[in-house]
Amino acid sequence: MLAGPAVPKVCGVELVELDDVQEAADTIRAMVVRTPLLPSPWSPELWLKPENLQPTGAFKLRGASNAVARLPASRRAAGVVTQSSGNHGQAVAYAARSHGVPCVVVMPDVAGPHKIEATRALGAEVVLVPAADRQTAAEAVAADRGLAMIPPFDHRDVIAGQGTVGLEIADDLAVDLVLVPVGGGGLASGVATAIKARHPGAAVIGVEPALAADAQESLAAGAVRVWPVERTYRTVADGLRTQVSELTLAHLQARLDGIITVTEEEILDTAEAMLREARLVVEPSGAVAAAGYRHHRGELPGGRTVAVVTGGNLAPDLLRRFAAG
Amino acid sequence: MLAGPAVPKVCGVELVELDDVQEAADTIRAMVVRTPLLPSPWSPELWLKPENLQPTGAFKLRGASNAVARLPASRRAAGVVTQSSGNHGQAVAYAARSHGVPCVVVMPDVAGPHKIEATRALGAEVVLVPAADRQTAAEAVAADRGLAMIPPFDHRDVIAGQGTVGLEIADDLAVDLVLVPVGGGGLASGVATAIKARHPGAAVIGVEPALAADAQESLAAGAVRVWPVERTYRTVADGLRTQVSELTLAHLQARLDGIITVTEEEILDTAEAMLREARLVVEPSGAVAAAGYRHHRGELPGGRTVAVVTGGNLAPDLLRRFAAG
Repeated sequence: MLAGPAVPKVCGVELVELDDVQEAADTIRAMVVRTPLLPSPWSPELWLKPENLQPTGAFKLRGASNAVARLPASRRAAGVVTQSSGNHGQAVAYAARSHGVPCVVVMPDVAGPHKIEATRALGAEVVLVPAADRQTAAEAVAADRGLAMIPPFDHRDVIAGQGTVGLEIADDLAVDLVLVPVGGGGLASGVATAIKARHPGAAVIGVEPALAADAQESLAAGAVRVWPVERTYRTVADGLRTQVSELTLAHLQARLDGIITVTEEEILDTAEAMLREARLVVEPSGAVAAAGYRHHRGELPGGRTVAVVTGGNLAPDLLRRFAAG
Repeated sequence: MLAGPAVPKVCGVELVELDDVQEAADTIRAMVVRTPLLPSPWSPELWLKPENLQPTGAFKLRGASNAVARLPASRRAAGVVTQSSGNHGQAVAYAARSHGVPCVVVMPDVAGPHKIEATRALGAEVVLVPAADRQTAAEAVAADRGLAMIPPFDHRDVIAGQGTVGLEIADDLAVDLVLVPVGGGGLASGVATAIKARHPGAAVIGVEPALAADAQESLAAGAVRVWPVERTYRTVADGLRTQVSELTLAHLQARLDGIITVTEEEILDTAEAMLREARLVVEPSGAVAAAGYRHHRGELPGGRTVAVVTGGNLAPDLLRRFAAG
């Protein structure tokens, strides 16, 4: 270790760095949409980063594209597998299709038919299993068929890919505050990595549903605190029900300035305002960061703020409800 | 005239050139959103240029911003005026506000309350007059108060501003075909100017509602053919009911490769698909170019195609209807 550069570690975990995020940006450039910052209708100091405009409707495409692209070619050729009931599954399917390699997505048998159909439409084989068996089923498929597992957040290449959201924000604006939703923590880890490296004076604050505030609790405890599924599944923000991992928690501990929570009502109010006032189709999870700004401004530092809008796969019944006003 | 460069003219009209569009791009850079190209869900060869993401919900902000910015400072300081029932009025109001100068928007007294409110919310003074008196009323306001008139399309600075849509398309994609809606023809003139200069091999084709096909008829006749208001007002695409001018027709004659028409049903079908399949809130006028692709592909050249999505100010009743499916 005498000659090598120092590698920052938190509790023995090697963190993703700006270089990794920049490399990811080069890797995925042709595969994702370079989203602009949109001035928000709610404040001249708030911009939205509309990741709902990605072809699969969510930022997840960035991490999945990077992870699939960085597999050794021979490994990738055999195909990939993941388990997801939502946006990550579609992202891996899309990335696999663009490389022309097979893809299996293990989904819980309670997943909505339109999500199953959307994943199949991207060329993936969907395997339905009881919700509790998802991870073991995916691991079994990986082992049986020799497929590479692409996890939704607990992977350095995924975190680096999600971090490109932060890199683009840093390129576009001398930002003072970035608000980012926290589910598994992959996006928040990557965005905080890019923003803190590029604008060291800017704050990065996570936003969670109060009904799935496991990341806030884990940060306070300094260790991963797992909330039971019965508890996190109460929130309408279905993309944010997952728990942080050791890897993502280490990033959040090192680079996040804080975490605030929003209520279910605040999330739904903001998702509706996105549709009716900002002309954006946004799912509840995607509205969480902007809900933090709209409803908790007093808890936040001031200045030029960006809220990451993570996804737009809004269920048809909620679309109807928001449009009805 | 001995030493000057040749200026192309059509029937004595001096056309806007690539240089003008490039200058407009520099002028308006900080005032408009640099929209990306979005892969469409309907074909791997179709991309959407989502101008509904502009802060006022339509591409009109580009032309208005350029025209207001290019006024001599002393003239601009006195304020601006325009007549518009829709997106152009909001665009001029937004541009005037960003320069801190007064703005009057003359609107027909039959305009919807939410359009009047949106224009006022941008700081403009709204003057309501009978629809037939709009132009004369706006001219009277301009003369009485010494305000500069910012026309919706019949002006070189407006055409050059709208042309920045084409410049961005040319920067992002080696495009084979661009589909652009035609109302007054300002956008089509500007986009064709930029695309033909940057990708001479690409085709630029206009799309009009069949119920307001005055531009197609004017092109065929080689002269401006005015359709009576009772006729053009039948189309749901309210942004495309206006007539081309001598200035815009000269650009279309010189640079457009053709013009096709779409039915009311095709327009509404596409606006609904934008919401439900592409996660974009799009008004009927904004769906016209994509409707041309979705329903008239056999009439079009093949290859990499961009459809310009011009605006997203969808009336609440249509939003409800599209969301209901």
